Amino acid sequence: MFDKPFSKIAIIGAGNVATHLGSALMKAGQPLHCICNRDEEKGRRLASLLGVQYIYDLTLLNQYDLIILAVSDDAITTVANQLKECSALVVHTSGTMPLSSLSVIGANIGVFYPLQTFSKQHAVDFSIIPICVYSTTEKYNQLLFSLACQLSNTVHVISDDQRRKIHIAAVLVNNFSNYLYIRAFDFLHENNLPVDLLKPLIIETALKINDIPPFEAQTGPAKRGDMETISKHLELVKNDQELSELYRIITNRVLSIYHPGATIKD
Amino acid sequence: MFDKPFSKIAIIGAGNVATHLGSALMKAGQPLHCICNRDEEKGRRLASLLGVQYIYDLTLLNQYDLIILAVSDDAITTVANQLKECSALVVHTSGTMPLSSLSVIGANIGVFYPLQTFSKQHAVDFSIIPICVYSTTEKYNQLLFSLACQLSNTVHVISDDQRRKIHIAAVLVNNFSNYLYIRAFDFLHENNLPVDLLKPLIIETALKINDIPPFEAQTGPAKRGDMETISKHLELVKNDQELSELYRIITNRVLSIYHPGATIKD
Repeated sequence: MFDKPFSKIAIIGAGNVATHLGSALMKAGQPLHCICNRDEEKGRRLASLLGVQYIYDLTLLNQYDLIILAVSDDAITTVANQLKECSALVVHTSGTMPLSSLSVIGANIGVFYPLQTFSKQHAVDFSIIPICVYSTTEKYNQLLFSLACQLSNTVHVISDDQRRKIHIAAVLVNNFSNYLYIRAFDFLHENNLPVDLLKPLIIETALKINDIPPFEAQTGPAKRGDMETISKHLELVKNDQELSELYRIITNRVLSIYHPGATIKD
Repeated sequence: MFDKPFSKIAIIGAGNVATHLGSALMKAGQPLHCICNRDEEKGRRLASLLGVQYIYDLTLLNQYDLIILAVSDDAITTVANQLKECSALVVHTSGTMPLSSLSVIGANIGVFYPLQTFSKQHAVDFSIIPICVYSTTEKYNQLLFSLACQLSNTVHVISDDQRRKIHIAAVLVNNFSNYLYIRAFDFLHENNLPVDLLKPLIIETALKINDIPPFEAQTGPAKRGDMETISKHLELVKNDQELSELYRIITNRVLSIYHPGATIKD
């Protein structure tokens, strides 16, 4: 384990991942020296926020030993093509893209995937964010592992296949849960009810995960097999076809776990 | 507004709602005097925890002016039948049951519904829990409103119809989100990956709700219209019919919001 496994780090990108990761690297005293970004204004803004240099021309990165691509999945190959001559270890931060998406660069490639949802408006505590690292050699794995340990208490070496599976699970708990929040808020809006009512419940539902496995934390009409309440709910949402279908599908799923054989008809 | 709108309060029930509500009443210095419960052992345990009396015989409640039924929905009518002669205001704590489920008692009935998910293992801060109150008269509404304000910063007078709609929204964000957590945990278990990886993401997804409306907080492949990642995910879950179906349905829903016209085929 090294305190500073790399001597000069660059981040390419100026979005949410670049912002939060850059800020975590600076806080951990890691040698982040520059932000590179196609959009100069955004790049300069983040560089100035972090107190590092802004660089437009990627060929100026030849003194660096770690380059972190914090760009969208579909930009990874394009940027990788511009780093062909590069001697630094180049890592991407994607949950989905394989290590080989960088292989045009050579063997000096890796993955540094922080498993979190980032947004500019919301500060996050990086120390609790799991980081999944992966590379082509044991030496690179160790260097990335060491760097990740400087930022987070939870670091794993995770293969492409494993990372993709973790990403699917992340889509379920993050993207799909958030879709449920959208539908619930819309339903309250349509009925002139204040959406703030739901916020403590949403947060408590998530916090329970720290104490109780979700299988045990399940509550509600489907968990109880309370078909009367389920019928009343379906009656109340019957004019909203999408919401009815969603209610029916997930209710049947929960019933099938806790009350095998019980089911609501179409 | 009164500091102590009631002079002698009883709770019937000894489950999660009774426990948390009882504890909140005691903390707020409200005159909770007893716990009643069919199961004597459970009842005595909660009474002793709260430092109040345990009562088995409901006919002994004639000195009370507020009786809170913290029992399951299907027990409400049964208990109400035993309180026919009662002069106290009797309220239930259910999101689904109408006020009229207590009407055998007379006009001295109401609803006191804390919108939260309670579990014994997890302490909650009652002051942030929205409480929905409702009754037959303006005077009772005011008394219940005053009591609720002693426990929480968010109190609304909410009709039966409104409360049922709020309960549906609560099912979406609580029960259905928790079902997604179950599926995500199962998927990681099946693939020998540590479920702890997901916990910070689950919590952050929920906390975002305080800063960003869910419509703006949405991220992920469907939000981006990233059909390549979606195809890869579907390929990886194709042997799990339930998970495939779930992934397909919610992904199509998110696509329809952010990329009208885009859809994944069956």
